[in-house]
Amino acid sequence: MDAVPFYEMPMDYQFNQLASLYKNTLLQDVIPFWEKYSLDRDYGGYFTCLDREGKVYDTDKFIWLQNRQLWTFSLLYNQVEKRDNWLEIAQLGADFLAKNGRDAEGNWYFSLNREGKPLVQPYNIFSDCFAAMAFSQYAIASGLESAKEIALQAYNNVLRRQDNPKGKYNKVYPGTRNLKTLAVPMILANLSLEMDWLLQSDRLESILDSTIQEVMGDFLDQDRGLVYENVTPEGKHLDCFAGRLINPGHTIEAMWFMMDIAQRRLKKDGETRETRRQGRQDNEGLINLAIDIVLNTLEFGWDKEYGGIYYFLDIKGHPPEQLEWNQKLWWVHLETLVALVMGYRLTGREECWQWYQKVHDYTWKHFSDPQYGEWWGYCDRRGEVLLNLKGGKWKGCFHVPRALYLCWQQLSVITNQ
Amino acid sequence: MDAVPFYEMPMDYQFNQLASLYKNTLLQDVIPFWEKYSLDRDYGGYFTCLDREGKVYDTDKFIWLQNRQLWTFSLLYNQVEKRDNWLEIAQLGADFLAKNGRDAEGNWYFSLNREGKPLVQPYNIFSDCFAAMAFSQYAIASGLESAKEIALQAYNNVLRRQDNPKGKYNKVYPGTRNLKTLAVPMILANLSLEMDWLLQSDRLESILDSTIQEVMGDFLDQDRGLVYENVTPEGKHLDCFAGRLINPGHTIEAMWFMMDIAQRRLKKDGETRETRRQGRQDNEGLINLAIDIVLNTLEFGWDKEYGGIYYFLDIKGHPPEQLEWNQKLWWVHLETLVALVMGYRLTGREECWQWYQKVHDYTWKHFSDPQYGEWWGYCDRRGEVLLNLKGGKWKGCFHVPRALYLCWQQLSVITNQ
Repeated sequence: MDAVPFYEMPMDYQFNQLASLYKNTLLQDVIPFWEKYSLDRDYGGYFTCLDREGKVYDTDKFIWLQNRQLWTFSLLYNQVEKRDNWLEIAQLGADFLAKNGRDAEGNWYFSLNREGKPLVQPYNIFSDCFAAMAFSQYAIASGLESAKEIALQAYNNVLRRQDNPKGKYNKVYPGTRNLKTLAVPMILANLSLEMDWLLQSDRLESILDSTIQEVMGDFLDQDRGLVYENVTPEGKHLDCFAGRLINPGHTIEAMWFMMDIAQRRLKKDGETRETRRQGRQDNEGLINLAIDIVLNTLEFGWDKEYGGIYYFLDIKGHPPEQLEWNQKLWWVHLETLVALVMGYRLTGREECWQWYQKVHDYTWKHFSDPQYGEWWGYCDRRGEVLLNLKGGKWKGCFHVPRALYLCWQQLSVITNQ
Repeated sequence: MDAVPFYEMPMDYQFNQLASLYKNTLLQDVIPFWEKYSLDRDYGGYFTCLDREGKVYDTDKFIWLQNRQLWTFSLLYNQVEKRDNWLEIAQLGADFLAKNGRDAEGNWYFSLNREGKPLVQPYNIFSDCFAAMAFSQYAIASGLESAKEIALQAYNNVLRRQDNPKGKYNKVYPGTRNLKTLAVPMILANLSLEMDWLLQSDRLESILDSTIQEVMGDFLDQDRGLVYENVTPEGKHLDCFAGRLINPGHTIEAMWFMMDIAQRRLKKDGETRETRRQGRQDNEGLINLAIDIVLNTLEFGWDKEYGGIYYFLDIKGHPPEQLEWNQKLWWVHLETLVALVMGYRLTGREECWQWYQKVHDYTWKHFSDPQYGEWWGYCDRRGEVLLNLKGGKWKGCFHVPRALYLCWQQLSVITNQ
């Protein structure tokens, strides 16, 4: 960033400057880090446990992160530039995953060892989600029919397992207290948009409708304008640890998924002037509601003392179950930037831009690491680095590049508006 | 504490003073807190989610903590004073647990709702451990045959399930990387001593032998003198997140369990002078080895910058998987006090007393809450309170009273030595 804070610059200059900052950081800093340090040329796939300087400190392969890196390099190839190198890096992950990632029934394991042998069983539906997302992007990049088939198989796993995501590993006693989790409809919204080219239009629209219905109906507390992490199947809010949980980063990420559905539908023509008008009204309404929720969540989840967004909060202010509740995580802040810039682009609402500047400043100050490249993942409440890493079991090549890419894109549109 | 630091007082006065401090805090502060705030007179059992002032903020009943509170009140009745009130409080938990705590096969659930309906399945062997411990103490207090039977049934569950503690909920893929965890032999050591009056002597001694063998053989890294949290069934140390994990509090607690076995065996006569001599040598050796490990663990796990003992560390200094790694937890510090005072009483080793003073000062300063009673459970790295609670899902009426009781007892012995 320039020495002059960007929000003191003339408005159009700012957007321009910011678009370059996000683009250059993505292409000259973050992606080169993964290109340089994460490729396992011996066994295929990617190393994700990288210390500050990029040194591998653990070689296990976590399916979420393997698929997410495959997605990222496929996206770059599809959307930014047709670099052979990017396609080749995607292939390194895709071949490893296609060979080793699934059990005999096609369910995705949670983790593998370096050589590709399974370590942890397919208890986690999000492994399948990220596989579907990754192989769908890779199918576009590679043109391979086999990649398309893997994507569709994984997508069908997700749909089949969505009502009992942990399957036989579910430890909840049936009947006493059933809860469903925001993560499922939220990820299904994003995943289905990612896979729109593979899905029949009416099937896609009906899945998207039900994710909106669930997220903005069942999970939203209308009175407080906050989204709960867990509710009963009927959308009731319960007074227990899980039932009181607010996960600000999750909420805000889900809100840009909602905006993304709405903006996509806005581009479509209705059949008559009346259906066009109604459609525009509905979708603009959805975008504004999503923005309201983002802003409410920031008011509720922003740390007034040290800055940054809390990881977990109890809606009633009781002590959360999670000991890491007051930590500041990279993805929470990056997804918030995406939501705010998207909200601003779509509506021009001033609160979005005010918050964007505040979150931008905090995020770049605490998470980016210009000295060694890539971004820190975990800070304590005060914003001091908690773990000396650029990647681990949960942080890989995904939230940083995706958010940088999306902010760059949105800022470019704003610049040219 | 007196205004003059206790270690500046004459030595015998210190022990005397300290014994009173621990005793009075137990009987006039901590136990009254639970007597006043934790009893569920409507449904039976105990509330454990209590805020700073004792107000109930969640009514779920976690089997670990229900059983641990039953154990504590039974112990007080058995060892401190035959107060009807204590027996009655124990009965309030015992009746609730006997009625609601187990599934049809006698395995202990992980949690129940306030009314006693199961919430989480019996996936956790430690629920059975604490049930065995609790009902064994309660059987002594109440003289009830039914309590004895519940204790033995739970103990047999533990033995039966010790090689696969999570049973069908185990998510590890068989064969690629099998690890066993320190928690199992460690808890079996303590539990078996607790239940010695119910077990046949040769069975007891053989179980104790194998726990010593495992903890001091398989889990101990001879070179570094540190105990690993997870090793292969053959005792090999692996270079992966779980394999590199050091849990200083666990290690130190396990070490006083080892000393406890050794001191018990020291009191027993061998059959000949030769076996007596050999037995004394073995057990004194075990005590000194346990102390060495406690001291090594403190050197390794003490936070040189802010004081206190870290929660989790990676043996190689890599970033641990646990985001809460640098937090300071009440039980870690209290179990350390028990280990150090026990080591000092048994051997008079000066390092034990030096460390005891340091840990005592840190612990009382950061965890005790004379203003509202009982102790804080969770501090951040800097020793500032992280959660505004006296009890929750994992902190109940157990580590604080047990440690206060054991320190009081040991200090009284030292005073009279």
